[in-house]
Amino acid sequence: MSQLDHKSQAWSALFSEPMSDLVKRYTASVDFDKRLWQADIQGSLAHAGMLAAQGIIPAGDLAEIQRGMAQVKQEIESGAFEWKLDLEDVHLNIEARLTQLVGDAGKRLHTGRSRNDQVATDVRLWLRGEIDVLSGLLTELQKSLLALAEQNADVILPGFTHLQVAQPVSFGHHMLAYVEMFSRDAERLADVRKRVNRLPLGAAALAGTSYPLDREAVAKALGMEGVCQNSLDAVSDRDFAIEFTAAATLAMVHVSRLSEELVLWMSQNFGFIRIADRFTTGSSIMPQKKNPDVPELARGKTGRVAGHLVALVTLMKGQPLAYNKDNQEDKEPLFDTVDTLRDTLRIFIEMMGGITVNKEAMEAAARKGFATATDLADYLVKKGLPFRDAHEVVAHAVKTAQAMGVDLSELPLAKLQEFNASIGQDVFQVLSLRGSLDARNVVGGTAPAQVRAQVARHRQRLG
Amino acid sequence: MSQLDHKSQAWSALFSEPMSDLVKRYTASVDFDKRLWQADIQGSLAHAGMLAAQGIIPAGDLAEIQRGMAQVKQEIESGAFEWKLDLEDVHLNIEARLTQLVGDAGKRLHTGRSRNDQVATDVRLWLRGEIDVLSGLLTELQKSLLALAEQNADVILPGFTHLQVAQPVSFGHHMLAYVEMFSRDAERLADVRKRVNRLPLGAAALAGTSYPLDREAVAKALGMEGVCQNSLDAVSDRDFAIEFTAAATLAMVHVSRLSEELVLWMSQNFGFIRIADRFTTGSSIMPQKKNPDVPELARGKTGRVAGHLVALVTLMKGQPLAYNKDNQEDKEPLFDTVDTLRDTLRIFIEMMGGITVNKEAMEAAARKGFATATDLADYLVKKGLPFRDAHEVVAHAVKTAQAMGVDLSELPLAKLQEFNASIGQDVFQVLSLRGSLDARNVVGGTAPAQVRAQVARHRQRLG
Amino acid sequence: MSQLDHKSQAWSALFSEPMSDLVKRYTASVDFDKRLWQADIQGSLAHAGMLAAQGIIPAGDLAEIQRGMAQVKQEIESGAFEWKLDLEDVHLNIEARLTQLVGDAGKRLHTGRSRNDQVATDVRLWLRGEIDVLSGLLTELQKSLLALAEQNADVILPGFTHLQVAQPVSFGHHMLAYVEMFSRDAERLADVRKRVNRLPLGAAALAGTSYPLDREAVAKALGMEGVCQNSLDAVSDRDFAIEFTAAATLAMVHVSRLSEELVLWMSQNFGFIRIADRFTTGSSIMPQKKNPDVPELARGKTGRVAGHLVALVTLMKGQPLAYNKDNQEDKEPLFDTVDTLRDTLRIFIEMMGGITVNKEAMEAAARKGFATATDLADYLVKKGLPFRDAHEVVAHAVKTAQAMGVDLSELPLAKLQEFNASIGQDVFQVLSLRGSLDARNVVGGTAPAQVRAQVARHRQRLG
Amino acid sequence: MSQLDHKSQAWSALFSEPMSDLVKRYTASVDFDKRLWQADIQGSLAHAGMLAAQGIIPAGDLAEIQRGMAQVKQEIESGAFEWKLDLEDVHLNIEARLTQLVGDAGKRLHTGRSRNDQVATDVRLWLRGEIDVLSGLLTELQKSLLALAEQNADVILPGFTHLQVAQPVSFGHHMLAYVEMFSRDAERLADVRKRVNRLPLGAAALAGTSYPLDREAVAKALGMEGVCQNSLDAVSDRDFAIEFTAAATLAMVHVSRLSEELVLWMSQNFGFIRIADRFTTGSSIMPQKKNPDVPELARGKTGRVAGHLVALVTLMKGQPLAYNKDNQEDKEPLFDTVDTLRDTLRIFIEMMGGITVNKEAMEAAARKGFATATDLADYLVKKGLPFRDAHEVVAHAVKTAQAMGVDLSELPLAKLQEFNASIGQDVFQVLSLRGSLDARNVVGGTAPAQVRAQVARHRQRLG
Repeated sequence: MSQLDHKSQAWSALFSEPMSDLVKRYTASVDFDKRLWQADIQGSLAHAGMLAAQGIIPAGDLAEIQRGMAQVKQEIESGAFEWKLDLEDVHLNIEARLTQLVGDAGKRLHTGRSRNDQVATDVRLWLRGEIDVLSGLLTELQKSLLALAEQNADVILPGFTHLQVAQPVSFGHHMLAYVEMFSRDAERLADVRKRVNRLPLGAAALAGTSYPLDREAVAKALGMEGVCQNSLDAVSDRDFAIEFTAAATLAMVHVSRLSEELVLWMSQNFGFIRIADRFTTGSSIMPQKKNPDVPELARGKTGRVAGHLVALVTLMKGQPLAYNKDNQEDKEPLFDTVDTLRDTLRIFIEMMGGITVNKEAMEAAARKGFATATDLADYLVKKGLPFRDAHEVVAHAVKTAQAMGVDLSELPLAKLQEFNASIGQDVFQVLSLRGSLDARNVVGGTAPAQVRAQVARHRQRLG
Repeated sequence: MSQLDHKSQAWSALFSEPMSDLVKRYTASVDFDKRLWQADIQGSLAHAGMLAAQGIIPAGDLAEIQRGMAQVKQEIESGAFEWKLDLEDVHLNIEARLTQLVGDAGKRLHTGRSRNDQVATDVRLWLRGEIDVLSGLLTELQKSLLALAEQNADVILPGFTHLQVAQPVSFGHHMLAYVEMFSRDAERLADVRKRVNRLPLGAAALAGTSYPLDREAVAKALGMEGVCQNSLDAVSDRDFAIEFTAAATLAMVHVSRLSEELVLWMSQNFGFIRIADRFTTGSSIMPQKKNPDVPELARGKTGRVAGHLVALVTLMKGQPLAYNKDNQEDKEPLFDTVDTLRDTLRIFIEMMGGITVNKEAMEAAARKGFATATDLADYLVKKGLPFRDAHEVVAHAVKTAQAMGVDLSELPLAKLQEFNASIGQDVFQVLSLRGSLDARNVVGGTAPAQVRAQVARHRQRLG
Repeated sequence: MSQLDHKSQAWSALFSEPMSDLVKRYTASVDFDKRLWQADIQGSLAHAGMLAAQGIIPAGDLAEIQRGMAQVKQEIESGAFEWKLDLEDVHLNIEARLTQLVGDAGKRLHTGRSRNDQVATDVRLWLRGEIDVLSGLLTELQKSLLALAEQNADVILPGFTHLQVAQPVSFGHHMLAYVEMFSRDAERLADVRKRVNRLPLGAAALAGTSYPLDREAVAKALGMEGVCQNSLDAVSDRDFAIEFTAAATLAMVHVSRLSEELVLWMSQNFGFIRIADRFTTGSSIMPQKKNPDVPELARGKTGRVAGHLVALVTLMKGQPLAYNKDNQEDKEPLFDTVDTLRDTLRIFIEMMGGITVNKEAMEAAARKGFATATDLADYLVKKGLPFRDAHEVVAHAVKTAQAMGVDLSELPLAKLQEFNASIGQDVFQVLSLRGSLDARNVVGGTAPAQVRAQVARHRQRLG
Repeated sequence: MSQLDHKSQAWSALFSEPMSDLVKRYTASVDFDKRLWQADIQGSLAHAGMLAAQGIIPAGDLAEIQRGMAQVKQEIESGAFEWKLDLEDVHLNIEARLTQLVGDAGKRLHTGRSRNDQVATDVRLWLRGEIDVLSGLLTELQKSLLALAEQNADVILPGFTHLQVAQPVSFGHHMLAYVEMFSRDAERLADVRKRVNRLPLGAAALAGTSYPLDREAVAKALGMEGVCQNSLDAVSDRDFAIEFTAAATLAMVHVSRLSEELVLWMSQNFGFIRIADRFTTGSSIMPQKKNPDVPELARGKTGRVAGHLVALVTLMKGQPLAYNKDNQEDKEPLFDTVDTLRDTLRIFIEMMGGITVNKEAMEAAARKGFATATDLADYLVKKGLPFRDAHEVVAHAVKTAQAMGVDLSELPLAKLQEFNASIGQDVFQVLSLRGSLDARNVVGGTAPAQVRAQVARHRQRLG
């Protein structure tokens, strides 16, 4: 009878009493770590392949392990696999079933490894796959925003600073700001991926092993970029989980900013956009309501991911080497971070494609708030005034226009000339929203020509 | 056909397309908020009772609602109830089933309320119950520690500051430090409970209602201490969730400190205690291991709860009034906080009862590190030296003893007198661990007599 | 020569080399903890008084200590006091100067205490004073909001949920929601104060002391409510700092919500309010700008305080008993939390008093978005329809009104009757904003009569 | 008179009242942002150079600006520069002084830029420099650890998992685990640097500018890798601050783990190491104490940096575009993060060099806890047992040895053979600590040969 036939029995040599049910539930991880099953099998097969290649187990054992694992895979996929709390985690569940199926070959699989290096390997393999999915979604979201940007390159939106009307901007330009953010998120994921994609297996419990393992071969078989070079670090490192969650938090912060704007723009006082009805919900009491539930919920979920980041940092703070059971707590925050970001990106890809823009409302709003005051100051600079003096002149002109209840562009030329004699008829082109927009043709500026150039650049980048 | 027969249909009057499946999954809460079902029924019955008492619905409707809810309750308890994602949340699921069962009376239940005040009421009722459970567990844990303290009032432990041996303390005294912490946690929960136990119902969507509700009567029926006095605040306030989670975080911080000490004391280099085998686990690779999994995991779970606190604070930051969908994200962190703290307290109650103390190892450790040096300084003060001078004298004595490889108590009297002539034969009583312990008989001090007095005081307090 | 004449010398008995300058700067706290000087002197005088009363030091020493401390106080207040990094912290700086001034009496002050219990006492005394200041400011802020609420009880604002127009509310009612929040903050501070106001002094380094201290007498002299009952806990407990910071975080979350609304309301698309110019700033480039810097900055500072909360929780997580140097890191987050909250409350008291309300803009906005749709549903319920059916009827009416581009109140009676035959002429009163407002006369509802009653209740509460 | 002669006057055109003193203090940043002065001048000179090259300002103005800035620099360095709260921030302080010195040329400097893009540029320039300093310190710390690793490659330490003795490891190997961590920190900083080193200047307030700026030329002059490609994003992006702080948090987490171990190892119950006296402090009450203040404080400071990360995430969550005043709150957390990490790394470089290793204590500790049990299991596997069966056999052997109070290596061969007949005389080599260590010669394993190879590899990597 082997250690895994009856888990508690296995320890009975040393342990004077079985684990209590309360403890079993508190310490078991199989309820949540079973999602690692594919990575676990993948890692085990690579390990077994290497063991055989190195002559540590016979070739026949490898064949048996492969046959058994194929069946385990099938059972899990079909739902026939029986997950047992008694067997604690995904690793022992799979190994125990394998041993039932193939006998001694299964018992030899764990040669030269420990659950400490095994779980670290599984999580890395799984996370690498998820990063690839997320990167793909970030690409799709950028494309969705690029389409919106292109369609709306000429649409005038009031650009805000401090939520006060500042200068007219292109709505397409505004969308491109988010393309920048999500492209940085993709960059960060690529950076994280490098550090995720290293192999802990071979570190065994903490010190390495006395078997002649070929770690590089396993790394290669698993598509990893290298092996973890220190066994103590390999089993206790959770940097990659923290680093990934930090990157995900930033992505969610970007989502929260976009969501805040969508909610504002949907509000009756703005009325800038509508999002498709299928992304809104009604009220159980107010029959007229159409609520932007999706962006609100996404904004709220930012807290969730930021919380997971804090959970992981708090978890690792002050932990002595090497592996401690605390580390089992890395999984749920990490899993939920992946799920939250993935679902959010998916829904935003679809939702951003279903936005209807109300150009008239945007342009009307841009007419409030003296959005072209800076253009007047720049105009005066071009006439020779130092910028700081021009700023002062325009402030006086704005004050007068405010008192008269008109926009700067509605002041008569003679009135404008009272503020500075150099002002000529050409000022009215400068004071128009369209003129202001077109003038900002510097790289990264809001001129529609720039917007179109950026859309082209991004499309090339994204392939 | 009513609004709830087909949820999506209900909104179809206003909505041009049904909610997409992706959106449905993203926005639905029934998977996690169904745990509020008892509170939801309890709140609905109190609401219906008041509606009838106020003549807003006929008495017959109340009877029907009571009958229907009794059946709903039975169905949920028996597992026969069918939870539908289409019906979004626990509230609509229960109401829809009620209406199937009792018809128009069910449709009248929602009169004068909204899901906004309903969910706030449900969460508060549920949390109040959980606080009472947690308070009970905190009492049990204190009692478990008091038993340990009493048994070990005379056991000498090296008291550490900076993890350096400082002064001898009673192991019982050390346990009482945790009793203080957990008693403060209970105080805090009692304070939080006051603010949880107020009734939002009657705030309706956000503005109150035009029905002549008797909110105080509902509050009384639900055992609440008062009604929320402002409808906008009533539906948007989540202070109670944050405040509770902050209190839970502190409780987990205390658990983490105790866990850290248990792990240290279990380590071979300390060897101060053993925890019962049923709270430890073995290793898949190292056959000799007995690992203190429970305290390690509890220490790790501190991060989890701290993360939930951050999630909730981030969630509420900058939210305009009144209810926003972001708030749906309050539930999972709150639920998991309750679960984590409850399971952790339960397991600690049991585990602390199963600790075996190794008195010899503790006392041997206390003999290292010149633990009675302060006693010598105090002795010199009583002989007339100012404290600061006495401190200086003892530092020289320690240096000499270190060089000689002996403890202060092992220096011959003549040698001690070289440092200060006033030292007499009575110094050796002062330099003993037991003498040092007994001497600290001030209120809150470590003398065994104090420890016993504190145990008695706590027992009286806890009833 | 005593221990404090030359700090590094003092330890030289044991230490083979002086502390490096780098270490000195890294470990010294005097730069920030000197703000505790008043509490430090207050605590020392109470300790000295008790030492004399108990006969532990002669009466003459007490007189000397009192005389010396009076001079130290004067020197600090006048700026003549020389703070020395070499003396590490506020405690040693003051004690060293005292000893210079009064000799041996000064050296006797530290009898029966340690810096561990001294610093815990100082921080608690200081924080108690700050809590009292903050509570006063919260009262003032509530009063400022009450004045605004009273003046604007009849002003109609669009009440939002999901930032969509929901139902008309009184602007005064909206202000009262914040009064509720800040009154809860004051409640929480009062709860925290109880746990702050307990005396650690007498715990000495960690174990209590062998001197016959009268701890209750010291507590009484310092106005404290009791003594910490366990010496290990007394020196290592930082719950009070965490608990205070959690309460402060909630207060800042409330500020952030109010700030968000002020920023929104100031935005040209709302135009609901103006805040006085002295709370706004201009732009270095855009001459027309008036930016709501104060609420924006306050909203940003919420993160700062939430960060301090995380810092303190992370700090304490997993610390073994008793005092560890980590705890020195409790001060800066705590100090900055107090400063941030105090400055923010002060500025909000002044700013809220300087708000100008644009009633017309608010009421015009409330006319958008079918704000009285719920009133129509309630009207139908009163005519006999079950609420759920009424909700459905109104949804159809809203859809029709939307298509026609009119409000519900602008639909002709005949049209309305197409949706339900029971609708009569009296519906138009129900569909008016004022009618809707007045109808919500339940406790906590938005009816102006309720608002005035709440203002009166709050004023009585605040005294 | 220009806008900057009297700041408050400058806005008086639009503003009906001066800013109150309270507001001035609340909103001013000069007290902390003046540390950006070098970056501010550097950025201004690059901007002015480009303005002249593009013919936007005359060459004479550039010369004047360069002359004036040289003097400003000198004044700041000498301490003669008068920082004025009235001038809000570092930018206006420097520009105002420049204008005093060089007149209209100074007023022309701000042409085509805004404080929004200016401050973003300054922070990035400053942070880039600090990252380079930190990277250098990380290299030095790794070298310091490599020296320790090399000296102690053959020293046997008990390797722990769960703080229970697991397997013997080389102390040098243990040090190399930290080299891995700090090398990942350096990798992360290099990744962050790429995203820091992009130029916002040219984004102006939010929309770009109508002047024909050459942004690439400015980027090149400042050594930046590119320009921010969207003006709205350029002024509102604070990803780089969050990303940097996340990387710094991880570095501090690593420091906290090392600190925890240093504190443990210094404790009398371990006695594995001594750190040099200059990194320890004494006690004001206990004359015998030598406390590891530096690692404790460093461990505590982990919370501080984690708190700053939360502050920044909370700050940015839900902010609409483009610049909001909230963002001013990015500086203090960022500055303090840099200071904390830099000071901590510096002190650890020095401290790790001053560690004295007690080999005997380490090896004695490794003899406890059956550290070679895994080796016996592996031995049995090599004799043909499946690993899981071997594990079971060894567990029984351990139980027997425990009962007899001896180590496995002290069991007679006959006794060992009772557990498995295949055990031979060669087992005793396997059961020795040295044998166990040498056997783990896989890549990344703890064998001294591996340790030396890793030291060589790291040295080559670090150059």
